[in-house]
Amino acid sequence: MIIDKLIDKINELKNPTVVGLDPRLEYIPHEILHDCQHRYGNTLISIKYALLRYNMGLIDALHDIIPAIKPQIAFYEQYGSEGIDAYIQTIQYAKKKGLIVIGDIKRSDIASTAEAYSNAHIGEMNVFGAQHAAFNQDFTTVNPYLGADSIEPFLKNCHSFDKGLFVLVKTSNKGSSDFQDLKTDGKCIYEVVGDAVAKWGEELVGKHGYSCIGAVVGATHPEIAANLRLRLPKTFFLVPGYGSQGGSAKDIAVNFDKNGSGAIINNSRGIIAAYLSEKYKHLPYGQAARAAAIEMQKELNKAL
Amino acid sequence: MIIDKLIDKINELKNPTVVGLDPRLEYIPHEILHDCQHRYGNTLISIKYALLRYNMGLIDALHDIIPAIKPQIAFYEQYGSEGIDAYIQTIQYAKKKGLIVIGDIKRSDIASTAEAYSNAHIGEMNVFGAQHAAFNQDFTTVNPYLGADSIEPFLKNCHSFDKGLFVLVKTSNKGSSDFQDLKTDGKCIYEVVGDAVAKWGEELVGKHGYSCIGAVVGATHPEIAANLRLRLPKTFFLVPGYGSQGGSAKDIAVNFDKNGSGAIINNSRGIIAAYLSEKYKHLPYGQAARAAAIEMQKELNKAL
Repeated sequence: MIIDKLIDKINELKNPTVVGLDPRLEYIPHEILHDCQHRYGNTLISIKYALLRYNMGLIDALHDIIPAIKPQIAFYEQYGSEGIDAYIQTIQYAKKKGLIVIGDIKRSDIASTAEAYSNAHIGEMNVFGAQHAAFNQDFTTVNPYLGADSIEPFLKNCHSFDKGLFVLVKTSNKGSSDFQDLKTDGKCIYEVVGDAVAKWGEELVGKHGYSCIGAVVGATHPEIAANLRLRLPKTFFLVPGYGSQGGSAKDIAVNFDKNGSGAIINNSRGIIAAYLSEKYKHLPYGQAARAAAIEMQKELNKAL
Repeated sequence: MIIDKLIDKINELKNPTVVGLDPRLEYIPHEILHDCQHRYGNTLISIKYALLRYNMGLIDALHDIIPAIKPQIAFYEQYGSEGIDAYIQTIQYAKKKGLIVIGDIKRSDIASTAEAYSNAHIGEMNVFGAQHAAFNQDFTTVNPYLGADSIEPFLKNCHSFDKGLFVLVKTSNKGSSDFQDLKTDGKCIYEVVGDAVAKWGEELVGKHGYSCIGAVVGATHPEIAANLRLRLPKTFFLVPGYGSQGGSAKDIAVNFDKNGSGAIINNSRGIIAAYLSEKYKHLPYGQAARAAAIEMQKELNKAL
């Protein structure tokens, strides 16, 4: 099962880090951007190749020390179909290098529309009689507001194609309290959603005791994370908000179980743009990313 | 304001219908699909042109009798970047023909990620010094689960670029009751979200008394819609679920105010695939769509 592959890889590398590939033009080294501009002009095609080359450099520098990447599709989608091309080719390259890919898409819809998203991102489409996996992610993130039947088509593909989900339960932003923290019948909405996620994942529990159906739990609310860790013993957590959003290594320790498993921590800017920080500015961007990733790994292992 | 343009157009045409451009390959007439296949082979490029030509035929047949279209991006995204190209070119063509475009994307994220989605779909991006509107929709749909700060970047672009939103409040599917109907402090979650939508839209109310920040309210729960209509007097409703999902013309009357305004009703399959039904199978697909749209218009106007 894909969740076992992810946990095996985390254990093997002793590194529960996922690197968020959220490229912004201001992070991309000038020489890459200028070379693409020189070849393809002031066009979205230049942007596509700049995003892709930047990502490939990061993947080359990181693939043997991290288990997974998490590209955030918004940063690609903003450049239209060229951006989507860069997103798809980034996933292909990462998988070729042995990385597990968590596509951060937070899609939500119902019935045949949810099915279309699910087939696109973690399933297959029929194209003139041949099966085609458009995005081919290993895991994908989804928004639960529309209810169980909106998740059903994703669960179906998790079963059919050995894929996994991370369902938004408690997000890392301040506004997450607006609706997620509301109380209903003595429980918070995020607890109700968390319980549903555990139930959806019951049939997809792997050898390590965790399900392929995981939860997104922000690093910025350690008490809530501690509560959810106890409440959802078979639910693996994807934890955003480390570093730039304010979550510390100490804060995130509560997301792990007593064996130091059960969660993967995302870091984006702190790694992919490390070469822009004071500390790593003497290094090329790939080497800076590698040094920052090793530093994060040490911090996490110290905190666990 | 964009909401005034939409209401003016509905009034002028006496038609509160939005046509959902949710193309599936099985809806596309064989001659279009075969011609594309003949030109571009068994490729995603064939699919792109087939989707686009099918949509253009529908837009040609409908643009003078309907105010708006609502392409659902999942049906394009499932074909990767070629699908996204068809989506973008469909929007461009529809706008050239004078139609208002509601991009049904149901995106959700936080901070700079929400900003990237917002800039992509209803704003602009800087591409080598020039401003670029990647998707250029008039309205877009968003999922509120992540809270007010996740909506903020969309509101900002509504102000800056005269755009509008439809926020998911109560969706048309059965599972919408799982979380949206939960009670908190005497109110349902969809009421809490609805009240927030009204507040977010306060500064964007147009000459007709409705805000550019609207709500998605499913046609399949008439009592809930009636309650929300009274509760949210300045919130315009986008109503899915008419026809194939079971909502009747009578059911949807409660979404409108006493002047017969305040809502737009979506129909997808019932119009775009009308030529596959017994009733319209003697007509080419565009003419069938037009006949079905005129029939729906009559039904709606009778019910109001």
